[in-house]
Amino acid sequence: MKPTITAFANSPDQGQGLARDMQVRWALEEVGQPYDVRLVSFEELKKPAHLARQPYGQIPTYEDGDFVLFESGAIVLHIAQTHAGLLPTDANARSRAIVWMFDAHSTIEPPIVNLDIAELLEGDKSWNAERLPLVKDRIRDRLRPLSNRLGNSDWLDGAFSAGDLLMIGVLRRLAGSGILEDFPNLAAYVARGEARPAFQRAFAAQLAVFKAASK
Amino acid sequence: MKPTITAFANSPDQGQGLARDMQVRWALEEVGQPYDVRLVSFEELKKPAHLARQPYGQIPTYEDGDFVLFESGAIVLHIAQTHAGLLPTDANARSRAIVWMFDAHSTIEPPIVNLDIAELLEGDKSWNAERLPLVKDRIRDRLRPLSNRLGNSDWLDGAFSAGDLLMIGVLRRLAGSGILEDFPNLAAYVARGEARPAFQRAFAAQLAVFKAASK
Repeated sequence: MKPTITAFANSPDQGQGLARDMQVRWALEEVGQPYDVRLVSFEELKKPAHLARQPYGQIPTYEDGDFVLFESGAIVLHIAQTHAGLLPTDANARSRAIVWMFDAHSTIEPPIVNLDIAELLEGDKSWNAERLPLVKDRIRDRLRPLSNRLGNSDWLDGAFSAGDLLMIGVLRRLAGSGILEDFPNLAAYVARGEARPAFQRAFAAQLAVFKAASK
Repeated sequence: MKPTITAFANSPDQGQGLARDMQVRWALEEVGQPYDVRLVSFEELKKPAHLARQPYGQIPTYEDGDFVLFESGAIVLHIAQTHAGLLPTDANARSRAIVWMFDAHSTIEPPIVNLDIAELLEGDKSWNAERLPLVKDRIRDRLRPLSNRLGNSDWLDGAFSAGDLLMIGVLRRLAGSGILEDFPNLAAYVARGEARPAFQRAFAAQLAVFKAASK
């Protein structure tokens, strides 16, 4: 059965692929699983029908009949566990790849989201100019050890995995901040992910939604 | 083989069980898996031997011979996938429980950690008093839908799972803030988790470390 995911009818990122449906699309493309998309308007996000699927009124969700998931990390893990291609088959190597899935969302993403919060929600506050350098330093404090661990490797632990997929998705949110450029191996790592054919198909699919909506 | 986890030799939380080894201990107690603990000093955290296990110089880690994991969420998931008792056996129900594991770490924890950052790292800043209400409101904005979803249920999705374990671990960080008390069903949910015998054994074990260190 073909799963259905939800995405923004009008993504606030203007087709940059920074909304969280991007990682789910990318995972589905990596494993070759066709999918349908239900576009959700900002009004519909907060209505009971959507809140029953996603309690916070956000996207993405993943549905297969009555079976519903939310949280992009959990959705990507479900896809990876039910299809070949995104996790090693060895059980221990699989758990090590899952480390990077949690690391992307628990350790690397929060300070990056805090930069979005500072710029989008506190941009007009008196303290913002003085506080922004602290916020940016906290991102660098996390990227430095990540960069050291990646070193000269293509991916974080052996072959490309769902851990790399989520990590690259998170690091892409730094585009335009200038911070990723301080860590050339991480910038190259992101470019390596973006060059994958599955990434490009997923990116094109979400861009098409933006272009159709802005006609 | 008995796994070894790492924990702070001198936990900054003074035995409150708020450091992230607590969730790993709790998971191991729930499934009845004995474990060893290697205590790590603040100096050792930043040395190569520990950084090889945990690239950010933090705790906990989980070791079984040469097999090493970090990220408490990934460790708890590994324990849950290799022992009975923390995840449903049905594959779809298992993926739904994992939703709450990612939700705890990706959606609920980040705004709670931001309150710690505001109080511990920005407590002396000129903006802190004016900014703190914003930080606290962002926590409430996440707890409100979580509270609605939990409703009158004991646990988030059927029987107690690793998702509840991580969520309760995260919510416990709000102790003393007064915020959890705005959501009586979430406060009762945390108390329900804390009443589990496995939680109490894990709590006593980490408290014993603090008491021995402060003698």
